[in-house]
Amino acid sequence: MVEIDDLAERIRSGERRALARAITLIESTRADHRKTAVTLLEALRRFPVREALRLGLSGTPGVGKSTFTEALGMRLIAQGLKVAVLAVDPSSARSGGSILGDKTRMEQLSRQKNAFIRPSPSQTTLGGVGRRSREAIQLCEAAGFDVVIVETVGVGQSETMVAEMTDLFLLLLAPAGGDELQGVKRGIMEIADLILVNKADGALKSTALRTCADYAGALGLMRRRAGDPDDFPKALTVSAATGDGLDAAWAELEALADWRRANGVWAETRNRQSLGWFRAELEVGLHALLDQPAVKTLKTSLEQKVTDGALGPEQAAAELLAVLNSSD
Amino acid sequence: MVEIDDLAERIRSGERRALARAITLIESTRADHRKTAVTLLEALRRFPVREALRLGLSGTPGVGKSTFTEALGMRLIAQGLKVAVLAVDPSSARSGGSILGDKTRMEQLSRQKNAFIRPSPSQTTLGGVGRRSREAIQLCEAAGFDVVIVETVGVGQSETMVAEMTDLFLLLLAPAGGDELQGVKRGIMEIADLILVNKADGALKSTALRTCADYAGALGLMRRRAGDPDDFPKALTVSAATGDGLDAAWAELEALADWRRANGVWAETRNRQSLGWFRAELEVGLHALLDQPAVKTLKTSLEQKVTDGALGPEQAAAELLAVLNSSD
Repeated sequence: MVEIDDLAERIRSGERRALARAITLIESTRADHRKTAVTLLEALRRFPVREALRLGLSGTPGVGKSTFTEALGMRLIAQGLKVAVLAVDPSSARSGGSILGDKTRMEQLSRQKNAFIRPSPSQTTLGGVGRRSREAIQLCEAAGFDVVIVETVGVGQSETMVAEMTDLFLLLLAPAGGDELQGVKRGIMEIADLILVNKADGALKSTALRTCADYAGALGLMRRRAGDPDDFPKALTVSAATGDGLDAAWAELEALADWRRANGVWAETRNRQSLGWFRAELEVGLHALLDQPAVKTLKTSLEQKVTDGALGPEQAAAELLAVLNSSD
Repeated sequence: MVEIDDLAERIRSGERRALARAITLIESTRADHRKTAVTLLEALRRFPVREALRLGLSGTPGVGKSTFTEALGMRLIAQGLKVAVLAVDPSSARSGGSILGDKTRMEQLSRQKNAFIRPSPSQTTLGGVGRRSREAIQLCEAAGFDVVIVETVGVGQSETMVAEMTDLFLLLLAPAGGDELQGVKRGIMEIADLILVNKADGALKSTALRTCADYAGALGLMRRRAGDPDDFPKALTVSAATGDGLDAAWAELEALADWRRANGVWAETRNRQSLGWFRAELEVGLHALLDQPAVKTLKTSLEQKVTDGALGPEQAAAELLAVLNSSD
């Protein structure tokens, strides 16, 4: 455990290589690595941690997420804040790797000593991506980052998953005709705290303003979230390219964060999220029981019998579960 | 086991009270009843069973499902067939009981000695409804019924669940304007083997014919199911009230069933369904591990610690799973 305590200490002192190594550890699928990772997280938990602002960010491909993250990140660093950027990309679970090097896409930000950019881990299930990202957030928080941006592409469940591990959720959208408004799923609108219509510059500015008004109208029709100020969620325009509106957007996010902290909503949300993650971990663990070699062999043979009609599904399941109940 | 063998024998001889008693047994949530139920199903499995035609039936409320089932059922009985009707109503899981007495809605059919009508079990989860219905089908099959109609209301996942336990799936729809066509979810259209537009009589006849043509067109645009004849799934009109089209609809279902039997699709489907149910049972059983009293107590206390922030979700899950791994 000396080694783990040492690693924890180096993470806490803000050593970037220690942080990177720890994230690699939690990304590992090896059982012994997993044990070490859990021990490390518990070791870090023993120290009081200044909570970071965990900011979820989603948006359709091509909307300019990287440009936005880089522009916002540079502004926060100029204010003296430390910024970490984690990417959650469930599609890389299929393609087997990060689509593009996130660091190359955020060239300026990646050169800052107060910035830490970590590309998506590859070859994992969506659930695995969730666990890893959530733990990576904790590590970044322990390493003293003030803002942790968790970026995801708009694919299926990934937004909900990211919303469940962040304090605020930001949806970045492109200027578009009114018809396309419906392309944004209601469920995604419902988890957004702030909608930003990007590219509000040059020829697209008037379209962006109109799109923003459309989304503001749509948000107005939705049910308010209990405990939030009346004017949230809201929609604003920004230009990641020119920087217009970025300060205003950040001010809104900070105001909402302050409001939630002052009203107990912040802590309540984090606790509720922890409980959700506990249940998700249990779920993963329960299914891992079936992956024990002897159980797996029996399961395969029972599946064959069921497929052949030699054994009923109920009886087969009962036989397998009996083994689980009596195993060491 | 003497008692179980006796019950099995009485079910096989077609004794209705024995069948009703056995269904009550599989509907029970008591652990000892559950064990007996599994033993009974295995006991029945030892005998060769003439397979029934398991027919799934769904449709929006008010479309006339009960009238249709009664009219079809009476025709089948007139042909010398034995007909069982099981209702799957996931909404009764919430309301705590069968909405309407199914027997009162099928007055004629319920008086036939070759008919058996079983209303929905109450107060169960959707998963529970699935297990019970599937086992009830097996019991009806063992009792010598030729056709088992499994009726469900069009609520969320229930159609998919019923399709997973039946050989053929019938979707009953009402005559409607073209716009309403889109109200039928694509997923439901995809599992239907036959779409019947009901109420094709009197003033609604021309609307019914138009609706039928619309659905036939929509089906034509969908991907064919591998292994099925080219003209399936198809859409027809019927009138449950006058009986028009019922014989033609039944002939289509029989033709499809014969085709599937002759081409191996029938057995393959049942085997695939069994494997799916084996996995569903495993899922239920895995979660039941958490319901053991000692585990439940520990889980509650761990959840409290996680909610209070005293323990991380990963560590808490690891502690609970360690107990599962080392339990008796």
